[in-house]
Amino acid sequence: SPSFDFNHHSHRRFNPLTHSWVLCSPHRTQRPWQGKQEDDDLSKRPSYDPSCYLCPSNTRANGAHLQNPDYADTFVFENDFPAVQQNQPVLLHDNSQDENPLLQVESVRGQCHVICFSPQHDKTLADMTEPEIVPVIDAWISTYKAMQQQDHINHVQIFENKGAIMGCSNPHPHGQVWSTEDIPQETAVELENMAKYRQRYHRCMLCDYVKTETDADRKAKADGSADPLSPTATGMDETRTSSHTAGTGPLAGSDPTPPTTPTSTTFPSTKTVSAATTPDGSRIVCENASFICLVPFWATWPFETMVLSRAHLARLSDMNSTQKQDLANILRRITCRYDNLFRCSFPYSMGVHQAPTNGDASHQELSHLHLHFYPPLLRSATVKKFLVGFELLGQSQRDLTPEQAAKRLADCSETHYKSAVY
Amino acid sequence: SPSFDFNHHSHRRFNPLTHSWVLCSPHRTQRPWQGKQEDDDLSKRPSYDPSCYLCPSNTRANGAHLQNPDYADTFVFENDFPAVQQNQPVLLHDNSQDENPLLQVESVRGQCHVICFSPQHDKTLADMTEPEIVPVIDAWISTYKAMQQQDHINHVQIFENKGAIMGCSNPHPHGQVWSTEDIPQETAVELENMAKYRQRYHRCMLCDYVKTETDADRKAKADGSADPLSPTATGMDETRTSSHTAGTGPLAGSDPTPPTTPTSTTFPSTKTVSAATTPDGSRIVCENASFICLVPFWATWPFETMVLSRAHLARLSDMNSTQKQDLANILRRITCRYDNLFRCSFPYSMGVHQAPTNGDASHQELSHLHLHFYPPLLRSATVKKFLVGFELLGQSQRDLTPEQAAKRLADCSETHYKSAVY
Ligand SMILES: O=P(O)(O)O[C@H]1O[C@H](CO)[C@@H](O)[C@H](O)[C@H]1O
Ligand SMILES: O=P(O)(O)O[C@H]1O[C@H](CO)[C@@H](O)[C@H](O)[C@H]1O
Repeated sequence: SPSFDFNHHSHRRFNPLTHSWVLCSPHRTQRPWQGKQEDDDLSKRPSYDPSCYLCPSNTRANGAHLQNPDYADTFVFENDFPAVQQNQPVLLHDNSQDENPLLQVESVRGQCHVICFSPQHDKTLADMTEPEIVPVIDAWISTYKAMQQQDHINHVQIFENKGAIMGCSNPHPHGQVWSTEDIPQETAVELENMAKYRQRYHRCMLCDYVKTETDADRKAKADGSADPLSPTATGMDETRTSSHTAGTGPLAGSDPTPPTTPTSTTFPSTKTVSAATTPDGSRIVCENASFICLVPFWATWPFETMVLSRAHLARLSDMNSTQKQDLANILRRITCRYDNLFRCSFPYSMGVHQAPTNGDASHQELSHLHLHFYPPLLRSATVKKFLVGFELLGQSQRDLTPEQAAKRLADCSETHYKSAVY
Repeated sequence: SPSFDFNHHSHRRFNPLTHSWVLCSPHRTQRPWQGKQEDDDLSKRPSYDPSCYLCPSNTRANGAHLQNPDYADTFVFENDFPAVQQNQPVLLHDNSQDENPLLQVESVRGQCHVICFSPQHDKTLADMTEPEIVPVIDAWISTYKAMQQQDHINHVQIFENKGAIMGCSNPHPHGQVWSTEDIPQETAVELENMAKYRQRYHRCMLCDYVKTETDADRKAKADGSADPLSPTATGMDETRTSSHTAGTGPLAGSDPTPPTTPTSTTFPSTKTVSAATTPDGSRIVCENASFICLVPFWATWPFETMVLSRAHLARLSDMNSTQKQDLANILRRITCRYDNLFRCSFPYSMGVHQAPTNGDASHQELSHLHLHFYPPLLRSATVKKFLVGFELLGQSQRDLTPEQAAKRLADCSETHYKSAVY
């Protein structure tokens, strides 16, 4: 009987951070694309644009005639159209009324900041130098610390939307920081799952994940080559027996811990051999002494990556100066690889997950500093992945495997394709 | 002190089906849009396109020279580039190995079908008649029933991606059905939350939700107008006291039931009055004897709607013939309202949530037939909502309130804007 091949057969992988599954259909990479093509942004931007509301000394967009300073590296200001505001009333609930669990609402105060990464209109993280990226990290840290002082702020979300396709309305290199009274959904869910993991295994989930991916890497390198049939090399035999019915899987309500082997299975008894397609270390894109960049085993977006600190750091401000420089190094290298992949200014949403600012001491142990990159492109600068129908109603779906994506990125150069031109 | 105004102040609402929050920032509707504009699809399509691989009698895209029949209403066939396949080996796990909870994988077999809604290339649900829509519903039911017979299928996901912006590669009116061995993430999560609700309240969550929205509607109509300060009219005082720290909210790991009033709060003690902005029935778009279409209290997409059966039906095939005609009626009316909203062929992803096919008898009680419409447009035919940076890393976010969206849709005509032209 034929053996299961991760490069050809459909399977789903479990994301332990969000406790959710993603469907992987590798044979579908052969599908011709006849749908929407994005515009390829070929415009050569000037280093200063007099009409840009983020360039130094220009007037901002809010109509109040505010002028930007003539800044030299980064520049932080409050968003002129913030999604959350500091000065609004608090919604108090009438506890004497019966509650309706289907109509739950909370007021959310907060503050929104914009961080210009560079005075130069035509730069991106991908073509900035590491010494130029360090001030961006410093601005993230100082904004986080300033928000930590605010009583009504409990969480700080740092992110960047890059490219028009990602809803970014100005190409000037910039990111945002939304600081809120609530702990947002994604972070709350990650913290919840990391807490359950710690309860069960008495270790940090992401420390373990770094170890899983790098131990494997070290082993594969020591062996010379990965043995395609050894259990540790495949990483596949280490998983549980499948259970495809609701109520028995890791989604089952009564199971607060990571899934264990269920006692029954709906599987037919066909015997197969699980063939190895994922040699160890195959999800690593690049690394340095303090950080590792990889395509997670459970990636949703085609070229999604995660940057993880090797040490257990709860937040950016816990980094020493070497680690900060190493983060600048990793950011330059992954964004440069992204640009080189399809020879375009590669769009993405990127953000930092770290400890909330609400002063909960348990977060020092629970949070593990990491960044997510969610890029939309699939095949080229103009063909993106649509997370639509089945993905919205059913389950996230991807075509190429995370290992294939990691290999493509690992094969990219860390010298920017445009640097020969400049 | 100023009172809390749901039309101006940021708040977040809880989605009990997915157990997740969405941030609502109504004041942000004033933000000018300087970003990406989509192409407005102004092409007038012919009713038959010789190059369309879905039109009757034409040759399909798979290179195997298959020819479509000269079909009269609907036409169902197996997807030429399926995301899941029937004939692939089953992945067996080696239970003698220690499992790594961070590398979990399951094989997924299945089948993918395409359903052409009409032989006419230029039609959509929005300009089909109700008698023309009934065969579409019949095709959904017969495909579901056929898959129910297959041992390796446990769930059937029916959906439609409409419009190039939603990843649809062919404008010929069609939908898809992906039938899988696993119960996909979204359905599994909904079932889990509906099970917890039933455990606690001994009722069906969506039966209760229909009652909440329609009782309120009946009450508001009986009163003549909604009293903006009465607790039942606002629907807001029925909610719990806020708790913004992880570990105390409905996301807390130890709380398997819908949230109750917590004993402590991190809120400052500022006193406010919660002002009413949501008169009862204000989320209903249209209804008939069997179905109700509304913008859910917790909607994420700007003009997201849900179609719910009034009766507790577990699946489409449980409908009697009146209910089937009523579903055709509601589908025509909501899609027509959508087209009229921005006078364009309104893009969306839409799908049916109903009982899985895995034969689990508890689903008869747990599942409540409903459809979700997820449309991307925000301001016009060319400006969409981007669910990007903060949404991907933090929390879903919307600007206009669900009540404002419902009013816009309720104000739209049910006569198609193009029908005067034809
Ligand atoms: O199957 P299609 O229509 O070619 O593809 C479309 O719908 C699928 C199911 O939602 C998505 O996975 C694809 O990204 C999208 O382009
Ligand atoms: O704040 P911006 O850059 O104008 O807006 C962009 O990022 C926000 C945060 O991810 C999103 O809510 C918007 O939909 C997007 O267009």
